[in-house]
Amino acid sequence: MASEKRQKAIDLSHHLSYVSRARTTSPLKGLSKYMGRPGLISLAGGMPSETYFPFETVSADVLVPDSFTLKETGQESGISWFWKLFARSNKPKTAPVSIPKFPEAPGDVNLAVALQYGTATGIPQLQKFIKDFVDKVYQPAYSDYSILVQTGNTDGWSRVMQTIMNPGEGFLTEEWTYPSAVSASKPFGMHPVPVAMDKDGMSSIDLRKVLSEWDETVRGCRRPHVMYTVPVGQNPCGSTMGATRKKEIYDVCVEYDVIIVEDDPYFFLQQGDYVPKTDRGSESASHLNDEDWLSSLDPSYLKFDYEGRVIRLDTFSKYIAPGSRLGWHTCNPLFAERLERQGETSAQAPCGFGQSLVTQLLMTWKYDGYIRWLHGLAVQYKARRDFFIDCLADEFHFEPSSSEISFWKGCQVFDAYPKQSGKRLFMSEKGLGTKLFSFVPPSSGMFIWIQIHFENHPTYRSRHADEPDERLEMQLWTKIAEAGVLVSPGWFFAADTENPPTDEVEGHFRISFSNSDFESLKKAVHVFSKCTKDFFKA
Amino acid sequence: MASEKRQKAIDLSHHLSYVSRARTTSPLKGLSKYMGRPGLISLAGGMPSETYFPFETVSADVLVPDSFTLKETGQESGISWFWKLFARSNKPKTAPVSIPKFPEAPGDVNLAVALQYGTATGIPQLQKFIKDFVDKVYQPAYSDYSILVQTGNTDGWSRVMQTIMNPGEGFLTEEWTYPSAVSASKPFGMHPVPVAMDKDGMSSIDLRKVLSEWDETVRGCRRPHVMYTVPVGQNPCGSTMGATRKKEIYDVCVEYDVIIVEDDPYFFLQQGDYVPKTDRGSESASHLNDEDWLSSLDPSYLKFDYEGRVIRLDTFSKYIAPGSRLGWHTCNPLFAERLERQGETSAQAPCGFGQSLVTQLLMTWKYDGYIRWLHGLAVQYKARRDFFIDCLADEFHFEPSSSEISFWKGCQVFDAYPKQSGKRLFMSEKGLGTKLFSFVPPSSGMFIWIQIHFENHPTYRSRHADEPDERLEMQLWTKIAEAGVLVSPGWFFAADTENPPTDEVEGHFRISFSNSDFESLKKAVHVFSKCTKDFFKA
Repeated sequence: MASEKRQKAIDLSHHLSYVSRARTTSPLKGLSKYMGRPGLISLAGGMPSETYFPFETVSADVLVPDSFTLKETGQESGISWFWKLFARSNKPKTAPVSIPKFPEAPGDVNLAVALQYGTATGIPQLQKFIKDFVDKVYQPAYSDYSILVQTGNTDGWSRVMQTIMNPGEGFLTEEWTYPSAVSASKPFGMHPVPVAMDKDGMSSIDLRKVLSEWDETVRGCRRPHVMYTVPVGQNPCGSTMGATRKKEIYDVCVEYDVIIVEDDPYFFLQQGDYVPKTDRGSESASHLNDEDWLSSLDPSYLKFDYEGRVIRLDTFSKYIAPGSRLGWHTCNPLFAERLERQGETSAQAPCGFGQSLVTQLLMTWKYDGYIRWLHGLAVQYKARRDFFIDCLADEFHFEPSSSEISFWKGCQVFDAYPKQSGKRLFMSEKGLGTKLFSFVPPSSGMFIWIQIHFENHPTYRSRHADEPDERLEMQLWTKIAEAGVLVSPGWFFAADTENPPTDEVEGHFRISFSNSDFESLKKAVHVFSKCTKDFFKA
Repeated sequence: MASEKRQKAIDLSHHLSYVSRARTTSPLKGLSKYMGRPGLISLAGGMPSETYFPFETVSADVLVPDSFTLKETGQESGISWFWKLFARSNKPKTAPVSIPKFPEAPGDVNLAVALQYGTATGIPQLQKFIKDFVDKVYQPAYSDYSILVQTGNTDGWSRVMQTIMNPGEGFLTEEWTYPSAVSASKPFGMHPVPVAMDKDGMSSIDLRKVLSEWDETVRGCRRPHVMYTVPVGQNPCGSTMGATRKKEIYDVCVEYDVIIVEDDPYFFLQQGDYVPKTDRGSESASHLNDEDWLSSLDPSYLKFDYEGRVIRLDTFSKYIAPGSRLGWHTCNPLFAERLERQGETSAQAPCGFGQSLVTQLLMTWKYDGYIRWLHGLAVQYKARRDFFIDCLADEFHFEPSSSEISFWKGCQVFDAYPKQSGKRLFMSEKGLGTKLFSFVPPSSGMFIWIQIHFENHPTYRSRHADEPDERLEMQLWTKIAEAGVLVSPGWFFAADTENPPTDEVEGHFRISFSNSDFESLKKAVHVFSKCTKDFFKA
């Protein structure tokens, strides 16, 4: 397979920013040819003696890779299993891992190295694990790609932005997107250029349209040469971009010489279509083994990246813990070298405690164990999504419909109406009363994106045109917050907050089903339901 | 004492950079008023469930605070004690610390919080410890200062630079300085403006001269409004700036409205004057208890900062471990808020593994224990400095002299000559032969700064004027490296590498005595001695 791969990516050096070009290689690099020589005594760096590190050993009890079942449990059994696993009387199964100050065998992860000053590329054992993982899981289309650790994808994007973009430039992104990606760019005079979406995520047709019709004099800046995208578990919409669309987008990016920054924290949280509870009973156990599950996932852009124009951002935040502040870039060696220089003058390397503990965990679990762990989490999140939508179905009457709204084009949309008391209807006859909100069940990630039909609110038509439209969104949001449930208001996620994606007046909420226990999720849905119904009565 | 302090710093908002002003508050901040309400269910963030963190407990064996003796041991006993302590048969005394996933009592450091997404201000227990520490140790002159964690002082300076400087601006700094501080600034079009030094560090007279004579048309940029300084254990020169000079510099900065960035990693490594070995015997034990030792240290700029114009950078790199990638800013609340926003779009918070382990260590040691630990390290580094200079004295003949070179003005300089075989001279009659190098024993920090007298090299006078002067420096450097010892070439440390501080042709080395064991230090000095003597014979 390696023989099919290109050995070299094309020359993309013209994408480097002025700032990035001006970064000098650390002068200490000149010393590197001597490093590692047997018997070398280095008096060059400002390194404390390792004997002064107060940590003699760092240890941990870690969950075993198969801690989470692959059975796709239903709602009730989901709860009971969940509580059973974590009840104090029934402690989860753990294994001990330990990191000594000095290695006991060559190649051991050890504190003397991990807690000393290190290179911005990370500790070697972690680099090796990641490289092997990327090879097997993402299968990049060229072989000499580089791996570079960072402190999470927000840092990853910040570094990329400063490495390949100049002040004043725009970057292509989904019309609804991750707010921190936009916040990070604006102070540098960079700005998002929204591209429309449909059910598969960013539209390749609209992308081509934006690029081909770009008029520098009208737009006030050069045609964007960078794209920021969350293709899986799209934040906030929850869509999943498959191989076909990725290839289409990639081809447009080749044609217009665009670098794709693939921010992909939810890759392993692909969940497939939502199947209503009543139709789910029969297939309660996952029929896939780990390998088949992995093959079933929609691939990364790296798989099609024969030119080396993809910078992929991976993070351990969603699979190990956000506090690990650890992730990595996968990209061509030219960009990786510049990103490394930038790392050296910011956080330097990620924290050695985090690096060594995560590395030791992964080396204990091994590749197969980590895949099993990821598979277990994927099943958990699918169960969470299903449970959350089941709870909504308990509170509202759903009608299937379709929508002309960009990000739902081609999807089956669920319209929610107040439920007639006593009846537990699902997908049945036309509902009565007010259409309150609509949504499409997410196919990956952590969020449900809900469109609230404020146009059906009693005060809506009597409101003055000069009143800000989002006021109803924030009014309902506040009502729900006061009742004890926090969701995210939709306006946070507009790529262009001054010119939101549609000229329609509906508001949105992004609701996360990833964190709370099942009982709280159920309670939260009830609070949301009560507040929303009350609000529309007003 | 608190009543003497000003409650508010003066308005310094005009120092904020364009980039910093443009940073928006995270939209999620709007949710913060609801956070922490009892029973709140948050479905707002993209947080994984804590039950999915694979770490159930993280533990460590940590050294006890009095692991390092306060006895100022001589050379031989230093070695033997050192080896005795760390010999495998005589394990160091440790105490266990442990961080559970969920708190067992309110206020416990726990993984559920530390490994979750957190604020860029750090975990509350760490913030509290640091605030108490800063209050007691640095005693800032105003009371409403802020503490903000960062990932080490390189990150700290990078953030500050982007918060209070615009592209094209210069910053005042010592003529020899920390190379990464310069490397971080250059890509943004910022540049160091060197200020001369004397034995107390940066010269207040030269500072005033640079500022008062500033001519924007000649210099091509506005008068600097930022100073970057390493006042203690000045890197690379090793000088220590006392209270008097700091007050002078502070007053000049008030007059010219300059913000002082005090990068102070070596504060607790103040070592006092070097006393030759032969004169040291009598006072082999430190007569200071921890409190008196702390009071004996030259104070931070914070102590004089009645206007809030100091941004102090502290790091755990030299006292816990560089790999902790953890430190903090102490500054006025206005700057702190902007620095926090910048943190949110880069590394977010420092790593939760590192934060929780360091916090648990500090909470176990308590304030008094940590001060004892720092005192122990200070004694260690003093012993290391003394040992290293003793080793040099074994290899070379020293003559006291004085120097007109800026950074040694007013110091007693040691000139080194080849030692006549068999004789062990120290500060005796005029040496014979070639003056090889000069140095001033550092009064703090980790480094000895050595000036090599290449003007006495046989080929020096016959060299062509167009040959780069640094070639002899790099020739000797390479010779020493090839012989198995790495030191840092002096040119790394010139604030302005294109126009080095003097027009003299001598080269320099910065040699670190902080890391290697005593035996290796002795061996390294021998290699340095042999190579240097050989080199000057060539």
